[in-house]
Amino acid sequence: MTVPAAPASEPGELPLDVILSQTVGTEFQSQLAELVPLLVRDLADIDRRMHEVLGATYPRLTDAATYACSAGGKRVRPVLMAALHRALGATDTRPVHSLAAAFQLIHTATLVHDDVIDHAEMRRGRPSLPQAFGLPLAIVAGDYLFVRAFELASEYPRSIIMRCGEACADLVEGEVLQESGRFDLTTGREHYYRVIERKTAAIVAAALGSVAEIQGAPVTVQDAAAAYGRSLGIAFQIRDDLLDVYGDSDVLGKPLYGDFREGNPTLVGLETYEGLDGNRRAEFERLFGLRRKQPGDLLRLRALVDAAGAPERVAAVARQWAERAIRSLEGLPPTPYRLLLEEMARGAAERRF
Amino acid sequence: MTVPAAPASEPGELPLDVILSQTVGTEFQSQLAELVPLLVRDLADIDRRMHEVLGATYPRLTDAATYACSAGGKRVRPVLMAALHRALGATDTRPVHSLAAAFQLIHTATLVHDDVIDHAEMRRGRPSLPQAFGLPLAIVAGDYLFVRAFELASEYPRSIIMRCGEACADLVEGEVLQESGRFDLTTGREHYYRVIERKTAAIVAAALGSVAEIQGAPVTVQDAAAAYGRSLGIAFQIRDDLLDVYGDSDVLGKPLYGDFREGNPTLVGLETYEGLDGNRRAEFERLFGLRRKQPGDLLRLRALVDAAGAPERVAAVARQWAERAIRSLEGLPPTPYRLLLEEMARGAAERRF
Repeated sequence: MTVPAAPASEPGELPLDVILSQTVGTEFQSQLAELVPLLVRDLADIDRRMHEVLGATYPRLTDAATYACSAGGKRVRPVLMAALHRALGATDTRPVHSLAAAFQLIHTATLVHDDVIDHAEMRRGRPSLPQAFGLPLAIVAGDYLFVRAFELASEYPRSIIMRCGEACADLVEGEVLQESGRFDLTTGREHYYRVIERKTAAIVAAALGSVAEIQGAPVTVQDAAAAYGRSLGIAFQIRDDLLDVYGDSDVLGKPLYGDFREGNPTLVGLETYEGLDGNRRAEFERLFGLRRKQPGDLLRLRALVDAAGAPERVAAVARQWAERAIRSLEGLPPTPYRLLLEEMARGAAERRF
Repeated sequence: MTVPAAPASEPGELPLDVILSQTVGTEFQSQLAELVPLLVRDLADIDRRMHEVLGATYPRLTDAATYACSAGGKRVRPVLMAALHRALGATDTRPVHSLAAAFQLIHTATLVHDDVIDHAEMRRGRPSLPQAFGLPLAIVAGDYLFVRAFELASEYPRSIIMRCGEACADLVEGEVLQESGRFDLTTGREHYYRVIERKTAAIVAAALGSVAEIQGAPVTVQDAAAAYGRSLGIAFQIRDDLLDVYGDSDVLGKPLYGDFREGNPTLVGLETYEGLDGNRRAEFERLFGLRRKQPGDLLRLRALVDAAGAPERVAAVARQWAERAIRSLEGLPPTPYRLLLEEMARGAAERRF
């Protein structure tokens, strides 16, 4: 299985229509065309709110924080938050801008600390923050982003701050859990889902549950929004694992095989491990367990993933989570924004970057 | 100048009377004896509140966070907060326990990340967290402590959360500023004070300003409390710089000469640099600038500090800041707790650990 390359685009700043063309089925784009200008404005407002709070009196800290926050990225969380807010009847998304900026800062802070921990050299097509600014500044800039995020969150009632805080605690736990399972394929699916629920899904769930609460939606709708976010997050992460082996590194903005190198037992690795027989299974396990892998090892790992037929099965699992996300939206009014949310769930499981 | 060794005590868990015997003049202890039981209880309650929030579903994260928080330490901030609260008329300090726990967690989080950045092997007489749990877990455990701190802070009105957030931003900035001036004695006093105001004083000021606000004190009293905290923090840090050269490493729980090794231009270094003439000044600057210093280099640096007569001058500056802190308390009612606060300021400038 190969994932076709995305149309030419800069991995840095991505206009929303490029994002939507990747995360939303193309045949659906024209119907969504009228929503785009509003969401583009929402996204610009959220970006502005985020950058407003980055100013430190020491310019190099501002520079580092701004560098981390201006790498573009897919901005899935803020788009989802604005779209859900509108799907629940909001005509003005300003009440969620600070919160969306906060979640984006938290996400960015964890990426920065992940890059420190993983010794990542590249992120979104540019040198990672530790690479560009050095390890000490990367650690404190991550802390700084957390702090500014919590200041933004403090504009909201305690229940929202706590959703935010618990999502952060989950993120941190996910990182620790992931760390504990490196280079070990016997950890199994339960461990895998525990990691990605915390590392990826919890923050999307918290962001969307918070939007529903801020909009005054009933608790059942708050829970449905959170469940949608959780399932979409899982679909997104499973797709991410697949792209790490089969994506286009130019489009992704980072080299392939990061999970093999770091020894992360993703669903791709687990499906392969379980799908192979005796000798090849042992070979896969041995190569996967190597702390330092040569290029030939990485290519052999990929060949074994192919041989196990894992990519198709993993892609199907991602789609199942997307469908589960969509089912969580059944109680929402049938607006174009709900359709957009549904398409974004499908897009999370189908995207190429 | 040598600092006499403290009475035998474990550097880990320190009973409050040992703390007070170090931070408070001994001749004054008997007068304060009646306050101790109450403050001991306050401190135990604050400790309990702090440990209550450390539980993660992944036990190793709880272990790391608990390890970082149970190293004892002087607990200057929580004692100051409880004492100020009582000095302002509170008979029950429960309203500030969560906040005191939050500030203690923030302080601990920054120590953990400092130890990562500085490659510190020891902290308070035990292996540092990165040494004991590894670098990745130390980074995420620091993040986790920040997150739990903000969850605790979210029990308070936004103005308090913002005091807390701004103090964190200052802390981070202080770390970055310090990083920018390493191995450079020409940065001067202005840089030094900018660093320690942010790294040490801002959080004490925010903690005490917050206590006054929570107790409903007028803004002038809130400002006075913050000013007291700031001056005490500066006195404390200047004394810390001196103890790094002249303290007892067994009592401090870490090796001496950390600032020389890390190239921090503290007031001890600056006073020496300015107090020496031509050749010896050049020698001091050259040795200070070495990225890797041998034991002989460190002893020669100390000999030059002696030769410049710096210790006495630095000790005097710390005492001046303590006096300034005491003057900030002039508007407070003359209770035994105010006397305790005054003595703690003096103690910050005189302590031996």
